[in-house]
Amino acid sequence: MKLLKETIQHIEEILIDPEGVIKTQFEKLAIPGGSLGRLEELATIYASIRGSIHSTIKHKKIFTMAGDHGVAEEGVSAFPQVVTIQMVRNFIEGGAAINVLAHRIGAEVIVVDCGVASNLEMLPSLRIKKVGAGTKNMAVGPAMSREEAIRSIELGIELIEEERRSGLDIIGAGDMGIANTTPSSAILAVLGKLDVESVTGRGTGLHEKALRKKIHIIKKAIAVNQPDPHDPIDVLSKVGGYEIGGIAGLCLGASRYRIPVVLDGFISTAGALIAHALEPKVSNYLIASHVSAEKGHRCMLQLLNKIPLFDLHLRLGEGTGATLGISLVETGLDLLNKMATFVKAQVSEPL
Amino acid sequence: MKLLKETIQHIEEILIDPEGVIKTQFEKLAIPGGSLGRLEELATIYASIRGSIHSTIKHKKIFTMAGDHGVAEEGVSAFPQVVTIQMVRNFIEGGAAINVLAHRIGAEVIVVDCGVASNLEMLPSLRIKKVGAGTKNMAVGPAMSREEAIRSIELGIELIEEERRSGLDIIGAGDMGIANTTPSSAILAVLGKLDVESVTGRGTGLHEKALRKKIHIIKKAIAVNQPDPHDPIDVLSKVGGYEIGGIAGLCLGASRYRIPVVLDGFISTAGALIAHALEPKVSNYLIASHVSAEKGHRCMLQLLNKIPLFDLHLRLGEGTGATLGISLVETGLDLLNKMATFVKAQVSEPL
Repeated sequence: MKLLKETIQHIEEILIDPEGVIKTQFEKLAIPGGSLGRLEELATIYASIRGSIHSTIKHKKIFTMAGDHGVAEEGVSAFPQVVTIQMVRNFIEGGAAINVLAHRIGAEVIVVDCGVASNLEMLPSLRIKKVGAGTKNMAVGPAMSREEAIRSIELGIELIEEERRSGLDIIGAGDMGIANTTPSSAILAVLGKLDVESVTGRGTGLHEKALRKKIHIIKKAIAVNQPDPHDPIDVLSKVGGYEIGGIAGLCLGASRYRIPVVLDGFISTAGALIAHALEPKVSNYLIASHVSAEKGHRCMLQLLNKIPLFDLHLRLGEGTGATLGISLVETGLDLLNKMATFVKAQVSEPL
Repeated sequence: MKLLKETIQHIEEILIDPEGVIKTQFEKLAIPGGSLGRLEELATIYASIRGSIHSTIKHKKIFTMAGDHGVAEEGVSAFPQVVTIQMVRNFIEGGAAINVLAHRIGAEVIVVDCGVASNLEMLPSLRIKKVGAGTKNMAVGPAMSREEAIRSIELGIELIEEERRSGLDIIGAGDMGIANTTPSSAILAVLGKLDVESVTGRGTGLHEKALRKKIHIIKKAIAVNQPDPHDPIDVLSKVGGYEIGGIAGLCLGASRYRIPVVLDGFISTAGALIAHALEPKVSNYLIASHVSAEKGHRCMLQLLNKIPLFDLHLRLGEGTGATLGISLVETGLDLLNKMATFVKAQVSEPL
């Protein structure tokens, strides 16, 4: 709890381009004012967080946070639970979508066992931060203890502390965990005070009957556990997951060190919701990448007051959408730093 | 006219993944079915156009087609006409947004003088395909002769013929030309049979009064010239531009050789509208990148039956948005070709 408290205390408010230097620089570039749209916005946000107009991105890391969920035994996912551990191996071996996409942007993938159900063999480059062997079934009681919830957040903070030593300029927050749209919808329903139906989607591909069951299970979990919407740690412990807590910790830890966090999809944003509920200033450091095809994601982004950069109907997780968002942030910075000005290019200004 | 006729005759209809081999391959990958959304769609379209599931992208070229417009003398742009030639020099020197963005994706920028108002000095790597020293003022008569309109389309076809010798796997179609949103809106109004008001925007940043004048000038140009909506060459000659014809030629030439064309913004899509009106099969080869902030662009894309990939409020042209679109096509292909299958990764399939 000490690490969590101390981290939250050190998160500062950010002013976006308070002296207008970034805006002034964009106005000098040989383009019609504002014509680079949201690419200008991204460069402005990034440089404001980092505190310098000359900020560049060198060290990019995607955290793919893995955990299992006791509620999987209720049949809320189209895939068997063993897929979590199988996919962790796939990430380590480099065969997953996140490996392909991270490679395209020159980012490292940090695969983290936050609490998969079985013990993984020692795999090269796997980071073991296991809180437990999967959460308990939230439909019959709390997913985890309050202590475990705090531990899961703190493991995310620890990862930031560890990784910043070798350089960390921007992160992507990704996930892997069979059944983890179920706790994510529950978190959204509780923190957003929303109907479960309106925030529950098909995850990896549920059919109609299974979707109805999933909605029923989420309602039951909330009724059984009575999570307190004003206590985010209570919400995380009762209807959350280890990797979701880990993502919340990444958001808090990165905010402390003024490292921008590019969100991925539904589970990533559920983690951000927990972090934001603990400390609203976290929102300054979050950049939404895409809006997922998963029902409820748009609603989550609205709660965080974020407008997604694109809608490509992605619904994979792992951090995949975040890589595309990081690429757009870099694009904005390249334009800010590498383009010629009206003066240098000898181009006439507007009439 | 011979080159144009021959090109159109050789454009084939494309079937998207007719034997389902691309769909089958995506189903084998270790992800929930369809979870890569439009990235799967882009890979499928690209591979279908190229005719092989193993297609990759090596040679990427962005054509930045420059031309001047007599109608600029009516005060329809926020910038003076000389900016066209100044920006051409900026492209050649590598200081423009398109240079920065093309570099990010490893694409070459081909800068083409389709008809700027003054003669450019011989600049290294500038392609001179000048039809005339700027079009005439369309508010008082035809922008160009019918022969010039054909010549402008054929110069685009020639560029494809020339560039495919050194390899051409995908192209971006960009533009530069002060006042060129004015002919683009006119083309859209005529070919789409739409009100001028509903398809005329602020271009590089017109204020309200200047916008009303621009609308008046476009209406006048259409009334004076009476372009025939069933004759795209008549439309191009009366209310078009040399670079817009050039872009139409790029679309036709690329289609002939089954080379995908990634559209940019309002002017790029106006060129595509002319090409599509000449030969509707061109639509098979077009990929929309973004929807521009310029009013009317969404409407143009609807006429071509294209859904844009993203909306970043860009309104610069040059081919800038197309570079981001090409990057997403490559991303889709990388996923198709580099990810592990369920079998290879030993991941269990859905229950």
